[in-house]
Parts: sequence; structure tokens; C-alpha cells
Amino acid sequence: MSIAGKNIIGFEEVAAGTEVLRAYNPVSNDWLPEAFTVATTDEINRAVDKATTAFRTYRNTTPEARAVFLETIAEKIMEAGDALLQRAVAESGLPLARITGERQRTVSQLKLFAAVLREGSWVDAIIDPAIPDRQPLPRADIRKMLIPLGPVLVFAASNFPLAFSTAGGDTASALAAGNPVIIKAHQSHLGTNELVAKAIQQAAIQCGMPDGVFASIIGNGSTIGQQMVKHPGIRAIGFTGSFNAGMSIFDAVTQRAEPIPVYAEMGSINPVLLLPGKLAQGAEQVAQQYAASITLGTGQFCTNPGLLLALEGEATERFAAALQQQLAATTPSAMLNRSICYHYYENREQLARKTGVETLFAGVSLVEQTQGSAALYRVSGKHFTTNQELQQEVFGPASLLVVCSDEEELQQAVQMLHGQLTGTVMGTDEDLRYFSELLDRFTEKAGRIIFNNVPTGVEVCYAMQHGGPFPATTDLRSTSVGASAITRFARPLCWQDCPQQLLPDALKDANPLGIWRRVNGEITREAVK
Amino acid sequence: MSIAGKNIIGFEEVAAGTEVLRAYNPVSNDWLPEAFTVATTDEINRAVDKATTAFRTYRNTTPEARAVFLETIAEKIMEAGDALLQRAVAESGLPLARITGERQRTVSQLKLFAAVLREGSWVDAIIDPAIPDRQPLPRADIRKMLIPLGPVLVFAASNFPLAFSTAGGDTASALAAGNPVIIKAHQSHLGTNELVAKAIQQAAIQCGMPDGVFASIIGNGSTIGQQMVKHPGIRAIGFTGSFNAGMSIFDAVTQRAEPIPVYAEMGSINPVLLLPGKLAQGAEQVAQQYAASITLGTGQFCTNPGLLLALEGEATERFAAALQQQLAATTPSAMLNRSICYHYYENREQLARKTGVETLFAGVSLVEQTQGSAALYRVSGKHFTTNQELQQEVFGPASLLVVCSDEEELQQAVQMLHGQLTGTVMGTDEDLRYFSELLDRFTEKAGRIIFNNVPTGVEVCYAMQHGGPFPATTDLRSTSVGASAITRFARPLCWQDCPQQLLPDALKDANPLGIWRRVNGEITREAVK
Repeated sequence: MSIAGKNIIGFEEVAAGTEVLRAYNPVSNDWLPEAFTVATTDEINRAVDKATTAFRTYRNTTPEARAVFLETIAEKIMEAGDALLQRAVAESGLPLARITGERQRTVSQLKLFAAVLREGSWVDAIIDPAIPDRQPLPRADIRKMLIPLGPVLVFAASNFPLAFSTAGGDTASALAAGNPVIIKAHQSHLGTNELVAKAIQQAAIQCGMPDGVFASIIGNGSTIGQQMVKHPGIRAIGFTGSFNAGMSIFDAVTQRAEPIPVYAEMGSINPVLLLPGKLAQGAEQVAQQYAASITLGTGQFCTNPGLLLALEGEATERFAAALQQQLAATTPSAMLNRSICYHYYENREQLARKTGVETLFAGVSLVEQTQGSAALYRVSGKHFTTNQELQQEVFGPASLLVVCSDEEELQQAVQMLHGQLTGTVMGTDEDLRYFSELLDRFTEKAGRIIFNNVPTGVEVCYAMQHGGPFPATTDLRSTSVGASAITRFARPLCWQDCPQQLLPDALKDANPLGIWRRVNGEITREAVK
Repeated sequence: MSIAGKNIIGFEEVAAGTEVLRAYNPVSNDWLPEAFTVATTDEINRAVDKATTAFRTYRNTTPEARAVFLETIAEKIMEAGDALLQRAVAESGLPLARITGERQRTVSQLKLFAAVLREGSWVDAIIDPAIPDRQPLPRADIRKMLIPLGPVLVFAASNFPLAFSTAGGDTASALAAGNPVIIKAHQSHLGTNELVAKAIQQAAIQCGMPDGVFASIIGNGSTIGQQMVKHPGIRAIGFTGSFNAGMSIFDAVTQRAEPIPVYAEMGSINPVLLLPGKLAQGAEQVAQQYAASITLGTGQFCTNPGLLLALEGEATERFAAALQQQLAATTPSAMLNRSICYHYYENREQLARKTGVETLFAGVSLVEQTQGSAALYRVSGKHFTTNQELQQEVFGPASLLVVCSDEEELQQAVQMLHGQLTGTVMGTDEDLRYFSELLDRFTEKAGRIIFNNVPTGVEVCYAMQHGGPFPATTDLRSTSVGASAITRFARPLCWQDCPQQLLPDALKDANPLGIWRRVNGEITREAVK
């Protein structure tokens, strides 16, 4: 399939604008030839208008129809075949094996939400039947369930050109819940975006979905993105990216006449507690695990471990030496784009210059080659607890080891941590018992607590939580990965004394969908009698 | 129990400030004698600090312990007896029967959340056990559930001195979920607040809850309230009141370094669709129902029907005439406070002066007596659909009848409605069939859709939704009434590969609490094998 470089608005492709963008290959260090036309204001308005109209039909589609739609998107993505894989590799610098795995993840996510729709209980159906003879007043018949919000704007992420982008988690969950989706394509992988957007468009046509259920818009985040955020027809926003970009979206939303839900996942330094028993047992093994995690995907995972907290001691010294050695032995690899690479070296140099920070290892700067080399820094707990800036994320294969002089300092370091996607505890059973109060504090800081493993790797399943307290995200009540993500683009609606035939199937007495519901306070799949 | 006029911070009472406030009796039109000392900045900081410390203990209490705490609060409120009822009557102007009923509602709410805690499934426990032999990679053990957020700031509402105030729905749900609560007492019912706050304090002491689990702060919303909203230790906010006060809180939150959930319920005009078949069948009966609903509690319910939408015709004329007659026959009654009463007359006069608005009936102004007299206005669909200002709430016993010239105009009127707590449909079965598309649009505008009844009256049950799209609330994903409210002050936390003994009971393999959980995607109460 050739690249057309156009905006996709429902079933049409448009490119009335004059400005163009091009994607960059960070491995060959060359601009890719295809030109992508930035959307005009008219085109953006048309996308939102079409989505608004499509919503009226789409929100009333059956769960089964939407499940088939999601599965068809997955099929069409697979049909895009090698052309898609190669384009994603060229635009991201990620190896083919990783992109192939990411495609599998993307397809699995779509299928997971199809399964969630067929199982059906996600709508949280609650039924309190009428009690006509209650004293002193009868009780009305009251029922509620989740319904979709309306057109959702999704910003594609740079670090997952497939799984967190055009047909990624936010798109899948928003479509599953019954919302049209408008994608703001990421500048770094415009060709990948087009191929996936076409797959969604084809699936929509094949499944008889309304024109406007999906659109893909080309443009810069700071101009086109801001314009879309402020459009009154947009009812919710999903974003994965940097703190600055996320906050500019969040701040723009405060300028809207109507506030809307904003799920911006903005990065995290993913602190790791290296407890003394564990290090004493095997400092070298932990170092090996962490060298691999820090450099995985050139350190460009949201859950990359950027902060290691330990207590002073011989085992910590062994760990530091081993980690330094392991990182020095890694080979630099391509970063996602030139801006990310430039900021990686700039940020790590800024970190290195901060008071009390010692450079244990810093690979040579390969900014011209768009490659990231590993780095490891060290600072005392005393310096860490007196300088909030040491918590600034360095996006890339770098980590900061904080060595605390005693348990009180460690407690203090944990207490002042900003909000995080993940927190990891490396500890023996005895460590976990001894530091139980510290662990309790630690849980207040993150969305997911991992025991004796690395934070990189986010399983797509029912129980996953990928989110956390600010500044990790702007809304700690939600996850962007896993089955629960379907509720982020939904709201409860209550029907009082509604005739049976007008109720959604999920709320009908007979429970035709066979879903789990709460009836008179009890969880059941039985019909209402 | 005598009134001390102090701020209650955990187990101590403080009043170091110099400024005082007094409550007003809107029936006798006199200031009540007791002086209430406005909190100092130090006292506010102390309340938040104590709540922050208390949170560490309180969030780890068992559901059973919190259930007993809530029930004990209910007991202590009942023990406050006639003194509490009389004080609430004096400070609100509401009749004794209404206040007695509201006390019952308050106590029932506390007991409902106790029942929710004992049933236990509200934590949404999800378990995906490890799959060690999965190919190509093993799956970790991943579990999640809802945990509390931290200190919650609750603004007491003027219109429900008990049920939406000191021990009202937000306090009950926040405490139930495991969060300390800090109340910003309402200036109108400071004595009622103190009596209830003391009941909560006594219950906390009796139940062995940590010092700081509850505080009550005295002061104006525009000064003390704003200061509290911006305090970094506050983790979420609940509010019920006017649009202006709600938005000033919402805007203040955007100035915080960390965004937090804000549930501001800000009012609603609760549109009613009067479909033609229904009016033809019994215009007079509908008018009688609505005259009672418009004037219930002097029109001071959040769900008061302030907008009636009908189609031109003989039945609508009969309805208008009957409603006008019924409202003229009502007796004016006390309003909650002088400010509300003043604004009621001011707002209804402003409405009356708008282009195209006809006054069908307006009772004499009784602003000096702090009493509200009923009023009914009429406007054409043409004027309504061209003037957004006609949707401004007139808080009090007034309503605006919009008469549309045809179905298209009615559709247009519905389409441009702002977000609402409720929408009501008065229609025969045939009406409902014929206007099905209109009803579909209508559901996009509200949190609860009521069929053939009045919107006033909000049942406290599992399926209730009291919330809705902006400007009805700042967060349409939540309810302030009913069992689901417990989730508004909670967030998901995920444990990965956590040893059994460190997991919360709700996530342990054995399911010691016997709650419903999702295990491997299936809803079950079985233990994990």
C-alpha cells in the first residue's frame, strides 16, 4: 500500500492544506521522502462534526457489533503486513523483532476489548427495582449503567508507534466503549499512522460503522493539537508522552468552556527500592537485571527505572560497581527521533552537573547518530532529599543511584517522591517484613508496585494498572493499559421508571446479554423477577 | 449540648482566631446569638497535617472497623436529638418534618455505606494469577483494587444542612473508602455543623479511630475555602452549591501544583419534556404534579424542575393555565438564607426582562421576610433556541415554560441544552415511541432520565446517579448520592508478584472477605487455586 500523506476523516481522505511534514529515519539518519499534509481548520472541524454525527449511531451499536469491528481492525492491521512493519521500523529506529512484538500486542489489545464487550459486565449495570408498597413512600424503579462520552481525541505516542498510537490502547478502549476516535498522528511516525488509520477505515466500512467513527489528523502538537483540544465537540482526551506536552494539553483544557476528562500519561522515573538483604544476597544479579531494564528499547519505556534507592553499605557498593560495569558493556542503540535523542543527552548532562551528583558511567554522546548510550549517576540521600530537581526524568538509558546514609533518610527520600507509574521493591522476605512501614508509604506514590522484578514490561490483562499519581498522569483514577481502560471513556446514566422496551439490553429485566449485574445490592446474572 | 463555636481538629477544639461568624434564622429574621470563630492559617494547616498523619493509620483499618465507625456516627447523630433538629430548623428555615426526614436520610446514608463496606465488592478486586509456563514469556501475578486517596475536603451545602453537609453523602463515602475528611462548614448552619461534627468526633474516639480522621473548619468560602482548596495535602474535593462557588473552587484547583479530583455539583435546571399525548390525556394532573415539585422546599432542591418544554397546542395552553393557577394558590415559605432569597428575586426579575419572556405568574416579592413566592414564565421555542441565557438557573420556586412551534424547534431546544443532573420525560407509550430520536438526544444531556414523574426526590440506593454533564457538575463520571459514590474518593493500585501475606485481604488467594472478584477475567467469589 502506497503512502498518500492525507488526513483521513471518516470514509474520505483530504489534504487541502499547504504545509507538509515528513518523517525521519533515526537509523539511516535521513528524512523519509513522503510528504504529509497538515490539516486545515476546516478539516479539523469536519472531523469533529462527522464524529459528533457518527456518535449518535455508533453509541447505539450492539456490543457484538463493536467487538466484530475491533477484531476486523486487528485483521486489517495484520493484512497491512510487512509494509507496516518496515515503515514502523524506519520511522522509529526500533528493531524489527520489537515492532513485530508490538504489532502482536496491538492486535491482542483489540481482541481483549472485543472479549470485554462480549462478556459485557464492564457497563456496571445496577438495578434497584421498584418497591410500590414501601412506606412512607414507594420506591421508583432505578437502573444505571455506563454509556459512552462522545468523540475522543487520542494523541499518538512516540515510543510505541503501534501499541500506544493510532490503533493503540486508547483508541481500542474508546471505540469499545462506543465513542468515535480522532487521532492526532505523531509527527515521528506519520507513515505508520496512515497505514494503521487506513486499516481502521477499511474495518469501519466493512463492518457498516458510521462514516466519522474514526479520523486521523496530521499536524504539530503545539498548533494543530492545541486547536483540537479546545474544540467544543471533543468530549475526552487520551495522551501518552512528555510532561511538558501533557501539561500543555491539560492547561489548554482549562481554557475550554466545558471541562472534560483528560488522561495524560506523562512519564515517570519509576523508583526502585534496593533493600539491603536482597543486595547482600546477590548484588551482581540485581545489577544484571537492572542494566538490561535500564537499556531496554534504548531506555524509552514509560516504566524505565530511572531512580534506584539503596542504603549505604558494602553490598550497595558491589551493586554500584556491577551495574556500572554492566552498563559500560552495553551497545548504544537508536533513539526514537532526533528531538528525544538531543534532550536525552542534554538532560543527563544537566543531571551530572547538579550538586553532589557523581557520574559513575556515561557512554559517549552519539547525538549526531541519533543513538543513546547508557549512563549511571550517583548521589547521596542527603542531596536527594534536599533537591526536588533530582527527580526530573531523563528519558533514555540512564539511571540515578541514591545512596542513603540510614533508614530515616531512605524513609524521607520515599516520602518526598513525586507520583509514579510504578514503584519496585527488591527485597527478601525478611526485608519486606522489616521495612513494612516504608513499603506502606511507597504504595502512596505509585499506580503499580512490583516485587523482585523490573518495572519494564506492562502486561495487557484485566488486573493491570498503568497510571498513577501526578505527575505520572493527570488522573490517577484510570489506567491506559488493560481491560479496565474501557471505563475511562464512559459515564453512568440512570433511568428512573423507564418502560422495559426503552431500556438498553444490559438493564432489561430478562438480562438478555447474560451479564453480571447488581440487583437490589446483590451481584447476580439472574433475570429480575 | 451547648454551642462552643470552635473549629474541631481531630480530638481537639481550637479557636485562636479573632474573626467570628454568626448564623441567621430566616424564619424569625434574626441573627442567632452564638459566635463561631473563623479558623486561622495555622489551624487549617494543623487540620491537614493531622489528616495526613491519620491517613496512614486510617487507610489500613478493616472494612468492618470503618462500617462500625459509620454506624456509630449515625448513633451519635440520633443521640444529638431534638437539640440538633431545632438548631437545623432555626438555621435553615426548613420545617421540622423535613429536617427530621433529612436526619433519617443522613443516618440511612451512613448505614448504606456500612453495608457497602461489609459486602466489600466495591473495591473492584481483579486478579490475574501468574502463568509461569506461558510462552514466549511467563506472566507475572497481577492484582489490583481500589485504595483511598488521602485527606478529602468537603464543602457543606446550604440546601441540605444534614444530608449534604457535615455528615452527608460526601463525608460518608470518603470515610467509607478510607479517607480522612475535613469539612468546610457552611456559614448558614454553623451550629448544626458543630453538633454533627461533635457526633463524628465522639464516634471517632469511641471507635479508636486516629486523631485527625475528621476536622471541621469555620470560615467563608471565598477566603478560608480557597485557602483549603490550594493546600497541597488535600487529595480530593467534594462540593454542592452554586455554579459560581463551584467554579471558583474548580478554577483554584487549576492553580495547584498537583491537579486533584474535584466533584463540584453546581446546579441544574432539570428540563422536563412535556410530550403532547401526555398533556392531551391530563394537562391538569401534570400541572398539579409540577406545581408541587416546583415549590417543594421553596424550590431549593438541586433537582427542581426549572425548565418545561412543550409543543404549541390546546393541551399546552390548558397545562399553562392550570400550572399558573396552581402556583398562584401556593403559600410562600422561608428560604434558606438571605443571600439565596435576594438572588432568587433578582434572578427571576432578570429572567422576566429578557426578550420574549412573558410572566404568567409571579408572587409578590418577600425578600425582607426571607420568603420565596412562586413564579412561572413563558417563552417561545424561537426565543429559547437563540438565547443561551434563558438556561441560567433561578434557584427557588420558579420555572420557565418553553413552547415550541414544531417538533424541529423542540429537537433544537433539546440539542442546545446544557448538561443537567436530571431530564424528565412526561409521555404516553405512544409519545415515547414517536419521539424516540428526541429521547436519545435528551439522554446525552443528563445524569438521570425520569419517566412520568417529577425530578425532585433522589433515592439513596445502589443504582442512583446524582451527577451529570457540565455545568451540572465538574465531573460527569461520578455520583454524589447512592452506593457508587464510594468510588469517587478512591483509585486503583496494582500489586505485581506480591507475597500473599503482604496483599490486602481483598486480594489474597483465599478470599477471606468472601467478596466478588474478577479472577482470570471471570466474576467469582471462589478462592484462587
